[in-house]
This record gives sequence, structure tokens and C-alpha cells, in this order.
Amino acid sequence: IRDTARVARSSVTSVLTSQGIGQASLMYTSVIRATVQSWNHSYPIRFTLRTMSALARDNNMIFRQLFDRESCTYTYLLADANTKDAVLIDPVIELAERDAKTVKELGLNLKYVMNTHVHADHITGSGLLKKLVSGATADVLVEHGDTVTFGNQKLEVRCTPGHTNGCVTYVSHDQKFAFTGDALLIRGCGRTDFQEGSPETLYNSVHSQILSLPHEFMLYPAHDYKGQTVTTIAEEKKYNPRLTKNKEEFVDIMNNLGLAFPKKIDVSLPANKVCGLHNLPEDLAAKFDAK
Amino acid sequence: IRDTARVARSSVTSVLTSQGIGQASLMYTSVIRATVQSWNHSYPIRFTLRTMSALARDNNMIFRQLFDRESCTYTYLLADANTKDAVLIDPVIELAERDAKTVKELGLNLKYVMNTHVHADHITGSGLLKKLVSGATADVLVEHGDTVTFGNQKLEVRCTPGHTNGCVTYVSHDQKFAFTGDALLIRGCGRTDFQEGSPETLYNSVHSQILSLPHEFMLYPAHDYKGQTVTTIAEEKKYNPRLTKNKEEFVDIMNNLGLAFPKKIDVSLPANKVCGLHNLPEDLAAKFDAK
Repeated sequence: IRDTARVARSSVTSVLTSQGIGQASLMYTSVIRATVQSWNHSYPIRFTLRTMSALARDNNMIFRQLFDRESCTYTYLLADANTKDAVLIDPVIELAERDAKTVKELGLNLKYVMNTHVHADHITGSGLLKKLVSGATADVLVEHGDTVTFGNQKLEVRCTPGHTNGCVTYVSHDQKFAFTGDALLIRGCGRTDFQEGSPETLYNSVHSQILSLPHEFMLYPAHDYKGQTVTTIAEEKKYNPRLTKNKEEFVDIMNNLGLAFPKKIDVSLPANKVCGLHNLPEDLAAKFDAK
Repeated sequence: IRDTARVARSSVTSVLTSQGIGQASLMYTSVIRATVQSWNHSYPIRFTLRTMSALARDNNMIFRQLFDRESCTYTYLLADANTKDAVLIDPVIELAERDAKTVKELGLNLKYVMNTHVHADHITGSGLLKKLVSGATADVLVEHGDTVTFGNQKLEVRCTPGHTNGCVTYVSHDQKFAFTGDALLIRGCGRTDFQEGSPETLYNSVHSQILSLPHEFMLYPAHDYKGQTVTTIAEEKKYNPRLTKNKEEFVDIMNNLGLAFPKKIDVSLPANKVCGLHNLPEDLAAKFDAK
């Protein structure tokens, strides 16, 4: 994302095209700027709390991993410790207030709310956060090779389709970590039997875009069902029971998982395609309207 | 812990005495060495997997936070990235195999399994881990001011009673973080209405032993019920709704929480007093014996 918000794109890069990802799929992976035109706020919201340089991680990155016990989804809060510009990755609607409160307490300026893909198991908190933090701009769509910038921190966008056809992975080369969404999970990977998933495509994505990163990179997934919180390229190349197989074996495994259909898919997809701003179930719509 | 394992202590330091902590209470905060006499193994177990220097964090510390979704307990795996010596803090018995597997896959030499206190809501994994990793020594008891050493990494033991009378906090001055158990939780603290808890004692412990650390120290608690994973001294001094009160108000809050009695306390305490080695419920005893 280079400075200006882009509401839609007229073309996709050749990298994307060569992986069979059409433009439409990108509509579902959205980034929302927390600075708005349509809400009559043309400047970023800045909280007045004092600087907490105490919170800085290496290279002045503030980093928090948050968890939704219900859907086992991980949400990540990243911020530049100097400028306080922040992003949230994969928030969950039921916990949007927790996330907004954390952002406020840490004195951060929430610049983007990002999703790795259209989730089928929970409704994204993007829409409610846009409302809670007030001020928000038009949606921004990202494509392979884009850079999301907040303060002096950068995340590279890499398209990693296969779980869905709009999945992306966000990579920080400075911090040596990546947020893999459901493309790569710890000792596992996302299922490929709905949302235009494809085991062949996932295999190619993970190997070419994720496992090709340096061995020491830390990987933070969107889910974990066993309490694990982080892994590394080195570990997954050695111990991932699916991704250490060859492509044919991998496809065979993925086509025979026999998983139940996600409970929340019917309410999640329509809402997530519009970033949790509309198409909400009644109880959440009421909560949304009350804010 | 200075080199040699000490099965029992004949005296406690004056710091402990002045806080009203008797020797008996220390019996409940145990550290188990994963190298044994009684199991016919006199040397540490070393796994043969290749070195994964990739996993190193700052200052060569490997760090993993693990979670038990059922009891909302956090377990921490720390290791010296060079020597591979590791410790586990507050493991949960149902997830001991997960923890043992992680230790093995990362090629670590599990030196100690540590607890911050006798938990009332889950049975510690210490006993089962001792069996799973095989080799284990006599229990070691820690006291205020002790240092737990693994490789070139050190954890200072600070007694922080009040939630129970045997609670400790483990502090790494090099890594600038501390594991606070249930003494200090993110925006909260442990309850004080059983296990010889005392709000006055907890207030004194937290203020003198934890909040007196430098502002930038990261705090990792034993629980969180909202998905939060870490906090800092700076934040808790500013936002902790209980601990920012004066002592009188704090005591009043703690004496009027009206909490339900912990569901698992009846099975947890007898088992945890012996590190989850004995006094297990039938299903877990069967699992234990099968290993």
C-alpha cells in the first residue's frame, strides 16, 4: 500500500495471474485504514496517553498475540514503538472491544485492520473496530508484492492461496516473522475443501512463498487448537506432517481429511466478505448498531 | 538453586520470615530436576536432534508460550539456545505430552519443571513430565533469592505470597521479563479467599516484589480469560483496576469478589502438593501408569 488508499484495482500482477488468482479473489482480503473520509475525520485518531516506550520489542516493534478461546483464532497487534502507528491482523468480532481497549491503553494509532483471508469459522472484527476506533477510510485491497507500512515498520504482502483463493501471508523481513493465516498452521495447514480451496495450490503457495523464507523466521498462524503459539520455518520443514510430504501425498491427505463442515460458515462468509460491516447475525448487528 | 539439589531446607531467609511465610509453605512450590537418581539415570537426557539455532530469541533465549484452553492456564518453555538446557513453568497434566513433544522436537534438554504455586484449578503436569522425559531427580525446593540456572540463562526466585502462601515469581533480569503465576494477572490478580490467601499479603508482595521492577519488564501470568498474552510493569501500574488502588480499597475489593469455588480444587490440591506424581483422579492415574 503506497501512501494512497486504493478502493479497487484494475489489474493484478503477473505473479498472481500465474498462480491462477483472479482479481475477484482479492476483494475478499481487505485492509481497512483507520483514518477516514466517509466518517468526517480526515486525520488519524491519536490517543493522548503518554508514550510507553517500555513496550518496545526488538527494533522498536510492539508485538501482542491475542487469542479467541471460542474459535481458537489468534489476533495480532503490531505497532511501531516510536510513531505508535499500529495494525491489527485477524481480529474476531466478539473480541473487538478488547482489541480496541488494548490499542487505546497502549496509546496507539490504529492505522490498518488487516485480514489474512475470508474466515469461515468466525466473523472478523474489522467492521466493528472501524466503528469503535471511529474514523475509517475506504477499504484498501492488497495484492502480491504490496507493502503495508506503519511507522517505520513494514509488512510485505504475499499471496498464498489454497485454503481460500484470496489468502495472503504478511511478512516482516526486519523482524524475521510472518503471519500465515490458515495457509500454514503449526504442524498443519488449513483445509482445502471449501471456499475455492485447492490442495495443489496450497502446496505450491506454502513451498514457494512461506517455506522459502530463511530458517530462523518465526511463523504466527491464525489458529491453533493445542495451545501452541508460534513456530519457525526450520521446525515446519522438519516436522510438519503434511508439508514434509511430496505434492501427490499431500493432495491425497488433504482430499481425505473427512472434516465436518464449519459450524459458523453460513453466517461468517457473507459478513466477512464485507469486513464484518454488514450482513451480521441479529445479536451482533444489535451490538454493532449500539456502538 | 545452587548446583546441588536440596530435598528439604532447614531454614528460610529473613525476607521470607518477615513476610510471614513459614517453611512448610515452600513445600508446595517445587522445582523438579529432569535428571534423576531414583530412576537409574544419573545424567541429563540429551536429545539427538540437530541444533536449531533458528529458534533463538534475544540473548539466545528460546521462548514459547503455551495455553490450556480448558483452564486458561499458560505454560512457558524457556531454553538456552546454545546449551539447549530448558525449563518448563506451570505445565498442565492433560497437555504434558504436548509439552514433552515440543521439548523433544526442539532438541532441548529439560532440566527443570517449575511451578509458581500449588494450583487449585488444574493438576500440574510436573509429575507426568518427569515420567515422560524419564530421568528425574529428587524434588528441589526454592526459596526467596534463589537462582534457577539453565545454560547461561538465570531466573531469580521471588516469593510473592497472597494468592497462596507458597507463590513465587520467577524473574529474568537479562531478558527483562517475569513469570508472575497468579500473583499478578493482566489487569487483575489472583483471588485470595482460599489456600491461605490474604489480600493484605498479596498487596505487599505485588508492590514490593513485582511492580518494583523496571517499567519495561514484560510480565507473563499463569492465566488469562480474555486471550491476552503479556503485559508490562508500566501498563499494570497505570491500568490494573485493583492494584492501582490503595491497600485498604484493594482489601475491600478482594474480600467482596463473591467468586464461585474452583471446580477442580478438590482433585487439584492433593495432587499438586506432590507435583502431580500421586493422588491423581482415576482417569489420569491410568494415563500416568501407562506411560
